[in-house]
Amino acid sequence: MKRRKFLKGAVAGGVAAAAGTVSAPAISKSIKQLKMVTCWPKNFPGQGTGAERLARRINTMSGGRLHVKVYAAGELVPAFQSFDAVSQGKAEMCHSASYYWQGKSPAFNFFTAVPFGLTGNEHYAWMHWGNGMKLWTELCDNFDLVPFMRASTGVQMGGWYRKEVNSLDDYKGLKFRMPGLGGEVLRRLGATVVNLPGGEIFPALQAGTIDGTEFVGPFNDLAFGFYKVAKFYYWPGFHEPGTVGEVLLNKKVWTSLPKEHQEIINVAVDAEAMLEYAEFNYKNGDALDVLLNKHGVQLRKFNDDLLKEFGKATEEVVAEIGSKDPFTKKVYESYLAARKKLSGWSALGEQGYMNARSLLKL
Amino acid sequence: MKRRKFLKGAVAGGVAAAAGTVSAPAISKSIKQLKMVTCWPKNFPGQGTGAERLARRINTMSGGRLHVKVYAAGELVPAFQSFDAVSQGKAEMCHSASYYWQGKSPAFNFFTAVPFGLTGNEHYAWMHWGNGMKLWTELCDNFDLVPFMRASTGVQMGGWYRKEVNSLDDYKGLKFRMPGLGGEVLRRLGATVVNLPGGEIFPALQAGTIDGTEFVGPFNDLAFGFYKVAKFYYWPGFHEPGTVGEVLLNKKVWTSLPKEHQEIINVAVDAEAMLEYAEFNYKNGDALDVLLNKHGVQLRKFNDDLLKEFGKATEEVVAEIGSKDPFTKKVYESYLAARKKLSGWSALGEQGYMNARSLLKL
Repeated sequence: MKRRKFLKGAVAGGVAAAAGTVSAPAISKSIKQLKMVTCWPKNFPGQGTGAERLARRINTMSGGRLHVKVYAAGELVPAFQSFDAVSQGKAEMCHSASYYWQGKSPAFNFFTAVPFGLTGNEHYAWMHWGNGMKLWTELCDNFDLVPFMRASTGVQMGGWYRKEVNSLDDYKGLKFRMPGLGGEVLRRLGATVVNLPGGEIFPALQAGTIDGTEFVGPFNDLAFGFYKVAKFYYWPGFHEPGTVGEVLLNKKVWTSLPKEHQEIINVAVDAEAMLEYAEFNYKNGDALDVLLNKHGVQLRKFNDDLLKEFGKATEEVVAEIGSKDPFTKKVYESYLAARKKLSGWSALGEQGYMNARSLLKL
Repeated sequence: MKRRKFLKGAVAGGVAAAAGTVSAPAISKSIKQLKMVTCWPKNFPGQGTGAERLARRINTMSGGRLHVKVYAAGELVPAFQSFDAVSQGKAEMCHSASYYWQGKSPAFNFFTAVPFGLTGNEHYAWMHWGNGMKLWTELCDNFDLVPFMRASTGVQMGGWYRKEVNSLDDYKGLKFRMPGLGGEVLRRLGATVVNLPGGEIFPALQAGTIDGTEFVGPFNDLAFGFYKVAKFYYWPGFHEPGTVGEVLLNKKVWTSLPKEHQEIINVAVDAEAMLEYAEFNYKNGDALDVLLNKHGVQLRKFNDDLLKEFGKATEEVVAEIGSKDPFTKKVYESYLAARKKLSGWSALGEQGYMNARSLLKL
């Protein structure tokens, strides 16, 4: 058996010798190319750079036998066509967030973020040790997709306001940018909710077309310069307490991969769940310092009455979403049960501890 | 070139074809065996099962070319000889916790848990995006070891008490089991601190040889049955707010591995940081339910005065540890700066959000 012939046989069986020991034509046949479309601009801090790291790690671990190539939003398909592109096989995988696909099923909301829902850590617990992954996999199967839970970007800030808000009266007619379920909550409380893509927010705030906006957290918000045109930075963000990203693979592509390559992708995405979450926490800390100490941003905490009103409206909105169809209801109920159990433990654990630490004024 | 000869050549170059396509003698030569000693009993829930999962994932991702075999504590070496065994090359890697090696350098404390220190998420942020990994790698290099940050087991509970504690007077002469820096804090406050291995705690509590004990959290504590002999379960645990595990590799072994195998190990351990942390959060939630609703355990919160006293003594103890030598001082200062920044962000982020959610009484 000649070397070339052996390699060819190995390739046909889904197995190839590592690069560096084989000749060029053999290599090119042995590499599985995976186009990964994303919902982010090229190297967008956090999510875009995370997509590049994920690709690099998969490529390295597979000894080059997998080659994931990252496409920024719009390079191959527009951001919000990522799901369809992967479902239809135009791309092999995407780096995105589940709630973008809520038009296909309201259940997708629960796999990213729910107002007054799970934190990042709680979400991870529900997904991997409760029923989350099982339900999500079942949902995605309808679209020939296999889902992987990526990273939480942490708790979002409540947003940038040009004027202070102290009661529900201050929301009547307030023109505020907030997408998704959180936006629906504010709409019910009397706000005029608008949705604007990232790049259009700053000019709208500056021109007074809107009175305020939420975006992400200090790390991403600082770069957009909102502090220049709205001086009150409110916390906490009730609307997205643990925004969790995803990677989706085309199911046919997934099942065609040998077990070792499946595991490389699976584990690499798991690792992002830690690394990117940690990045947001660290860089939010850095950016908060800059906002407060260099740009004189004024922090404001939503008062308890307002938070309770947000909470009441939230429970209504989420219950409506959660009863739209039988499958979504199943997801909603699993999510509610997980929230009850996990927030009960958090109250004694991380929440309880952090409140104790705050007594020390370190 | 014959198939057998090609494979032999490939093996010599550190590269091998995947198992399943080659004959047995060739396979045995192409597999890199890695003995992983651990500090846990076989399949100890959480950490022991996590070691098995880590090995399985590394073995799968490498297509069998790496073969990690897990040894329970005592199988190859006793738990607390793991570090030396790997440093000296008797085992290739270990699954352990850095603070076990504080006898070798007090700096090792900071890479696992510090009373009133970083939570799991904050620790991950410091390690991967601040200076933590860099400093730890420098420290381990003195022992021919390469460190990898594994998982946080979450915030520990304050412990099991036979009688309620309301003021410092209640600690005078109290016989309490708590290892490490937390134990030193209680000792300074007048307690008689003892250290007992897991299996000896229950009989000591039952016999009244000790008045109370901390252990881990609901998930691990439930199995040990402490609720049968001490009815008050205190929170929050100030002493270990985010106990983070490690994997250590012998440096010569590490540098001998091809880049793809290095990345497989690196990424697999990163993934554990998410998965095992999530497991502890989920199963702590489950176990807490059982303890409260089935076994009638009575939760008690340390009062604010006590927490402040714990805090004062903690800052002294940690400052002393942190000034024992110039390198440890560098680590201590980096840790303090990270705590200031990251707890500032947590206060607005996860802590702020969870406190808001608590207003809703879900």
